[in-house]
Amino acid sequence: GGVVETLFFPDAKLPCRNMNKPGGCRRPHCEYAHEPTSLTRFLAHLGSARSSLDICVFTITNDDISDVVLSLHRRGVRVRIITDNDQAATQGSDIVKFVQAGILVRRDKTPAHMHHKFALIDGRLLLNGSFNWTRQAVTGNNENVTVLADPQLIRSFQAQFNKLWEQFK
Amino acid sequence: GGVVETLFFPDAKLPCRNMNKPGGCRRPHCEYAHEPTSLTRFLAHLGSARSSLDICVFTITNDDISDVVLSLHRRGVRVRIITDNDQAATQGSDIVKFVQAGILVRRDKTPAHMHHKFALIDGRLLLNGSFNWTRQAVTGNNENVTVLADPQLIRSFQAQFNKLWEQFK
Ligand SMILES: [Zn+2]
Ligand SMILES: [Zn+2]
Repeated sequence: GGVVETLFFPDAKLPCRNMNKPGGCRRPHCEYAHEPTSLTRFLAHLGSARSSLDICVFTITNDDISDVVLSLHRRGVRVRIITDNDQAATQGSDIVKFVQAGILVRRDKTPAHMHHKFALIDGRLLLNGSFNWTRQAVTGNNENVTVLADPQLIRSFQAQFNKLWEQFK
Repeated sequence: GGVVETLFFPDAKLPCRNMNKPGGCRRPHCEYAHEPTSLTRFLAHLGSARSSLDICVFTITNDDISDVVLSLHRRGVRVRIITDNDQAATQGSDIVKFVQAGILVRRDKTPAHMHHKFALIDGRLLLNGSFNWTRQAVTGNNENVTVLADPQLIRSFQAQFNKLWEQFK
């Protein structure tokens, strides 16, 4: 019972943001997705966080994802982010937004890459795979995210997160 | 019971190749690893293939890994490889060696990336995570590989492999 689901990318379309409004999308011929996609399922898992969200992801540039992270932070969920120092400095990185919002962010300090792409939700769910949190990865690349509730896996990834969190202090 | 183990990188050292010889390593002050590492455990899982090995990995340049793949092919294990077309063309890629040895290789034909990093062993084990099969990823980067025996996960990744195998024909 440890496997919740696997999400494969690319999605054919980005999700329509009007679907978050009362009444949904009223644009005729809207080119965005109105049905569930891998990204909307991914966002729903992230958005299910109630107490903590530990993110350890190489590149974060996708605004649909960043908006959920920022909204969780505003709701009082304890968000911690570990990312790659080189990627954090590149254009389009959402790391500056996170820091400005008061989210705790740490970067690896090595010339090598902090290349993980995992997140831990409430110590209850692990998201892990090849998927960087970028727009290119959503609608361009072949990617996977496994959504897992296995206690043994969650313990080992939480220990890894805690170790890197100290290491990159 | 679906989780076998999680391997975290970087390893402090590359494995000593003399450990494969009778008598082991006799070099005084040898700088390579003589004890198990994440890479040697990874190689042991790969090398356990008896009937089939389906590889779907963005970049493959690590010769310790390639040697195991080539040796499985010579022993009669059915090896199939899906990789990224851009990466396959870069210097140091082991794809040319695989093709020359007669291994079946297919490349994505898109400008986007075939960014998966998973392998299926005998339809019995799934290796998946952030880990590209490169030397940099072994001793430089922070990376993970989950080793999983969960039938539901294996079914969904096998279906994904088969789909991409047809798509990149
Ligand atoms: Zn719409
Ligand atoms: Zn040695």
